[in-house]
Amino acid sequence: MNGEKIPVGILGATGSVGQKFIELLTEHPWFRIVALAASERSSGKAYGEAASWFQESRLDPSIAAMEVQACEPDLPCRIVFSGLDSSVAGPIETAFAEAGYVVISNSKNHRMDPDVPLLVPEINSNHLELVRTQPYGEGMIITNPNCSTIGMVMALKPLVDAFGVKAVHVVTMQALSGAGYPGVPSLDILDNVIPHIGGEEDKMQTEPLKILGTLEGRAIAGAEMTISAQCNRVAVVHGHLEALSVKLQRPARREAMIEAWNSYRAEPQELGLPLAPEQPIRYFHQEAYPQPKLHRSLERGMAASVGKLQPCPVLDWKFITLSHNTIRGAAGGAVLNAELLVKKGYLTEVAVPAE
Amino acid sequence: MNGEKIPVGILGATGSVGQKFIELLTEHPWFRIVALAASERSSGKAYGEAASWFQESRLDPSIAAMEVQACEPDLPCRIVFSGLDSSVAGPIETAFAEAGYVVISNSKNHRMDPDVPLLVPEINSNHLELVRTQPYGEGMIITNPNCSTIGMVMALKPLVDAFGVKAVHVVTMQALSGAGYPGVPSLDILDNVIPHIGGEEDKMQTEPLKILGTLEGRAIAGAEMTISAQCNRVAVVHGHLEALSVKLQRPARREAMIEAWNSYRAEPQELGLPLAPEQPIRYFHQEAYPQPKLHRSLERGMAASVGKLQPCPVLDWKFITLSHNTIRGAAGGAVLNAELLVKKGYLTEVAVPAE
Amino acid sequence: MNGEKIPVGILGATGSVGQKFIELLTEHPWFRIVALAASERSSGKAYGEAASWFQESRLDPSIAAMEVQACEPDLPCRIVFSGLDSSVAGPIETAFAEAGYVVISNSKNHRMDPDVPLLVPEINSNHLELVRTQPYGEGMIITNPNCSTIGMVMALKPLVDAFGVKAVHVVTMQALSGAGYPGVPSLDILDNVIPHIGGEEDKMQTEPLKILGTLEGRAIAGAEMTISAQCNRVAVVHGHLEALSVKLQRPARREAMIEAWNSYRAEPQELGLPLAPEQPIRYFHQEAYPQPKLHRSLERGMAASVGKLQPCPVLDWKFITLSHNTIRGAAGGAVLNAELLVKKGYLTEVAVPAE
Amino acid sequence: MNGEKIPVGILGATGSVGQKFIELLTEHPWFRIVALAASERSSGKAYGEAASWFQESRLDPSIAAMEVQACEPDLPCRIVFSGLDSSVAGPIETAFAEAGYVVISNSKNHRMDPDVPLLVPEINSNHLELVRTQPYGEGMIITNPNCSTIGMVMALKPLVDAFGVKAVHVVTMQALSGAGYPGVPSLDILDNVIPHIGGEEDKMQTEPLKILGTLEGRAIAGAEMTISAQCNRVAVVHGHLEALSVKLQRPARREAMIEAWNSYRAEPQELGLPLAPEQPIRYFHQEAYPQPKLHRSLERGMAASVGKLQPCPVLDWKFITLSHNTIRGAAGGAVLNAELLVKKGYLTEVAVPAE
Repeated sequence: MNGEKIPVGILGATGSVGQKFIELLTEHPWFRIVALAASERSSGKAYGEAASWFQESRLDPSIAAMEVQACEPDLPCRIVFSGLDSSVAGPIETAFAEAGYVVISNSKNHRMDPDVPLLVPEINSNHLELVRTQPYGEGMIITNPNCSTIGMVMALKPLVDAFGVKAVHVVTMQALSGAGYPGVPSLDILDNVIPHIGGEEDKMQTEPLKILGTLEGRAIAGAEMTISAQCNRVAVVHGHLEALSVKLQRPARREAMIEAWNSYRAEPQELGLPLAPEQPIRYFHQEAYPQPKLHRSLERGMAASVGKLQPCPVLDWKFITLSHNTIRGAAGGAVLNAELLVKKGYLTEVAVPAE
Repeated sequence: MNGEKIPVGILGATGSVGQKFIELLTEHPWFRIVALAASERSSGKAYGEAASWFQESRLDPSIAAMEVQACEPDLPCRIVFSGLDSSVAGPIETAFAEAGYVVISNSKNHRMDPDVPLLVPEINSNHLELVRTQPYGEGMIITNPNCSTIGMVMALKPLVDAFGVKAVHVVTMQALSGAGYPGVPSLDILDNVIPHIGGEEDKMQTEPLKILGTLEGRAIAGAEMTISAQCNRVAVVHGHLEALSVKLQRPARREAMIEAWNSYRAEPQELGLPLAPEQPIRYFHQEAYPQPKLHRSLERGMAASVGKLQPCPVLDWKFITLSHNTIRGAAGGAVLNAELLVKKGYLTEVAVPAE
Repeated sequence: MNGEKIPVGILGATGSVGQKFIELLTEHPWFRIVALAASERSSGKAYGEAASWFQESRLDPSIAAMEVQACEPDLPCRIVFSGLDSSVAGPIETAFAEAGYVVISNSKNHRMDPDVPLLVPEINSNHLELVRTQPYGEGMIITNPNCSTIGMVMALKPLVDAFGVKAVHVVTMQALSGAGYPGVPSLDILDNVIPHIGGEEDKMQTEPLKILGTLEGRAIAGAEMTISAQCNRVAVVHGHLEALSVKLQRPARREAMIEAWNSYRAEPQELGLPLAPEQPIRYFHQEAYPQPKLHRSLERGMAASVGKLQPCPVLDWKFITLSHNTIRGAAGGAVLNAELLVKKGYLTEVAVPAE
Repeated sequence: MNGEKIPVGILGATGSVGQKFIELLTEHPWFRIVALAASERSSGKAYGEAASWFQESRLDPSIAAMEVQACEPDLPCRIVFSGLDSSVAGPIETAFAEAGYVVISNSKNHRMDPDVPLLVPEINSNHLELVRTQPYGEGMIITNPNCSTIGMVMALKPLVDAFGVKAVHVVTMQALSGAGYPGVPSLDILDNVIPHIGGEEDKMQTEPLKILGTLEGRAIAGAEMTISAQCNRVAVVHGHLEALSVKLQRPARREAMIEAWNSYRAEPQELGLPLAPEQPIRYFHQEAYPQPKLHRSLERGMAASVGKLQPCPVLDWKFITLSHNTIRGAAGGAVLNAELLVKKGYLTEVAVPAE
């Protein structure tokens, strides 16, 4: 029943991530959008006028007609998704949490806070327990990792479980949509590669240690792993491709690694969360796969692809991974976080709608 | 005097590398083109009709009017540049050498032959001595490395000299012109990256060992170094960008590494060869440099660019390098090889023209 | 019931159009694929091996396992869709028709034959009657127009009906997928426009006269209209954008033209054909719409978009139109033709499956 | 002698057009840059720090070291080139003229002022006389047309002279650099065409009438010609391609039209101006020429290319034209205007340097 769906709001609704939230939530079986909030410039306008909608899907007319509100904690819902720009996200998200809201954030500001889960439901769903250590009463903040981190950690997790991973070397070829809108000027990227993305290498070298870390008592003990990242922007619309080499703790056979990826399942699959991919990681045997254009939308953009597994003469093994940066790596990852939270009963008075 | 220039021929003159040879040799101060040879399909036609000229420069009318000949060793010159496809280059180049021609080849076929120099004049000009061990009498074969190898070895050589290099990890983002013409279909690369280039990783892992090896007696002892390469094709017209991480034999300071690159000079610079770059390697301090579009044409496409030097948490140091794949990495490298050969007096009866 | 679906075959199944036929027919409510035929090189192989599948969707495993057959008229179905290359389509399609097959062709070979319908179901469904004049007995050939013609005629038809059209000037900006695969080399189109598409201008100047012509007795009287076309290839994956100017027979107001487009409905809509767009033509009021990337997939790629209607100082009115060249402009158009044929009862012993 | 060169300044020196002025003037035989002026944000800084140099050429170190000044009329030179943004150019250019400066402007603000020459030296060099009607005493303002106008008028002028032109229909495919920097976001144009450029169609429909108009007494009588323009942005770095159809006043043969283009010469060629192309217009007979990537740099970017001349079923003849939008269509056109002005002796106390 539509009436029984859980009302949610979106902070930063006009931006690139905000638009993707709208796409994913418009027909979501559990959630319905009741509030769109953005900066002062937009507030008071109809969403269709305030936002420059640049998704390939059509903007739902009922969403277009909604009035954009200010990013202040008096929205008629308990859960808010935050696609706020990191220049403003920090204090706004805190204010919402203090007012009792559940903030599902895609912004970097609170990711490394010790009491904030940096959540990838297939990897560390138990980290959700951290919210019980947060000082917000009914409110809480939950984050998902950087768009370039997600593909890497999904590909690493089965190897960590089966063989242990000591060191990771990663070189990224990242899509334009990762830079938001307007983002990268066309004159900078047509017939070019930009070998620099501000702050990205640092995120890739630190976030995985928290995500792959262990919940000990009420805190995360970071994973023991060395990571070196070099990040590049390429002329691709969506889909971050990453070339990885890893040093393992225990010897691995090629077939066992591929089996570890293909057979990987976790709590989102067991719980049947709406956005969960059936097979979170798929290995491609073709020598030139995966490719951004062909495989970014695998399982509606929620799965990671892996390919080209070969022995690495310098470390142990090398391979590539691909994931959709604005779906799995941003809005889709955040929605999956919210689904996990609701399904596991973390929110009193909020329940999965009956079918 | 034009009459005193050294007559040369071009094998595979209609192809992508052959066209670049024509561009570079048309106004060369030492050489003049007297013969253009190509496959049977083209021979007998005027070059302007046989070739689909797709360079941005204009085809010289006198070249356009030349009759294309068969690739048989009766051309009116002593030196031939070979841009032949590797599917046919092997036996044709051998036949020319046996007939007394000096073959300056860009093809891969003879690169790893023990008695054939795999030459980068700034790095291993003494390897030229290998030609004295060839069984061809007056004839000889000299090769230049693969287009993705060249940027890497130019960036490595000063580090090898100053600090020693034990291991190299490299991930490439290679330009479309490296695949020749017609090469990569546009439907495969627009909005995409192709994480596979046939045979390329193997070349990058083996050619540098020969180039950086030591001439001992009449043979090359390969360099002791481990290399791991992952090769990708990106939507760039010219310029191969490569992300490298290295493990050194001796500790290095950042400033010393940059100085080693910027101050590097070798025999081509000392001899003042026409195509030699004044500064073979340039380090860029800007955080997003070098970039293919902005820096591939540095020193007329003959220099390598380096940037983004940072400590590597997994190996020792990481950085990026860029070089022009069809100039320094192909035709330009081959012409520089020929210049070295002539200037060092390897060819009897052939001398640098008086100015 | 799956068992009741109409069995169909695909000629030229491994090519670009053939793959699109497979995509559209795999889950079609009326048809099921029972035969895949291609050139000798492919026949006898499993489809998954014979074809280099480059669609973004996943190839259905049951299709991948089917054995490719030769293009000879002994396929176990009555209807065949032809995506054959025009270099071979002519005689093969004739042979199938003579053997009693219904050939739904996307190839140009028979388009202008006087007794072959050049069909766009929204425009000239009555031209189907032409098949009764064909000499093939039970067999018949039906064609759809060139991919650049379709957007133009869909935009013109409501104007023809309401105001009459005397002259059309059209300049196209056509997508890469219109050239098939491998098609346009990337070196030719990255950072470029190619102002030439072989044979395209002629098709655009002649096909619309037949499509918009009148069925008089057993023949088509061509429309009286002058068309001038200039065709260009641009770096777009899918979606042909066309800039049109028209001279009308009767004065038109801007609002009336827009209303003519937006309210246009025809037989496919009335009959509820599965692939028929609900609204065949949609006018966009935004000043920079429609755009290939944003609007090519409107109504699953089966609708035409129109925008930028302005008075033309030279003719009467100017505007732009956009349509998906491989769906509406090729395979999708052909499937709609087949749906019309079946629904209107042209095929004895073949009926729309009960739901 | 360097000391004898004419000192010039650049207004808006940090922007896209300003950078191109610097490129063209750095080694100009007549002019030397003595002042760089820009907005308050930049003034006081070294140019190398104030500007984000994104040209492919290297920024001259002596230019990089110059201090950027405010855009106020106390620069140590008589001639200033203006690449100011149109949002501020109007009053600043007027202030400079009133202070006695010769303003060579690329901005649109004063183009249509009755007493300001809208100058293309090959077409209407006599319009320079208009400056004598300006109210600025020693000062004056001279403009060049919009970047999309220039290719069109160069292609039209020989036809106007030989056959008369009654009507022109033009559809453009314009390069990204025409939008300045940062300009078009990459997410808007990769895999896309944008069928709208603000104000462009109006400029193309009006500017040619003034340029091709007649100087009668002290005013321009506009050309009698009807123009209809549709403007599109495509994924090309430099080079505006335009598809034209024309209605002539007198019948023309194909060969005569081509001869009119190829043989066209005018005052810049007669005077031997440094930036003047030897052959201002070149017709290409190849069926797919000219193309932006291959021909935009013809004659150092100062010539227009024409091709694909065919009868037009709707008007009389159709063809395409191409010109480099940031050279001939902007900074290069402005420098040529200055060369004409100096060579024709319009400036007292300023003379062409002796060689």
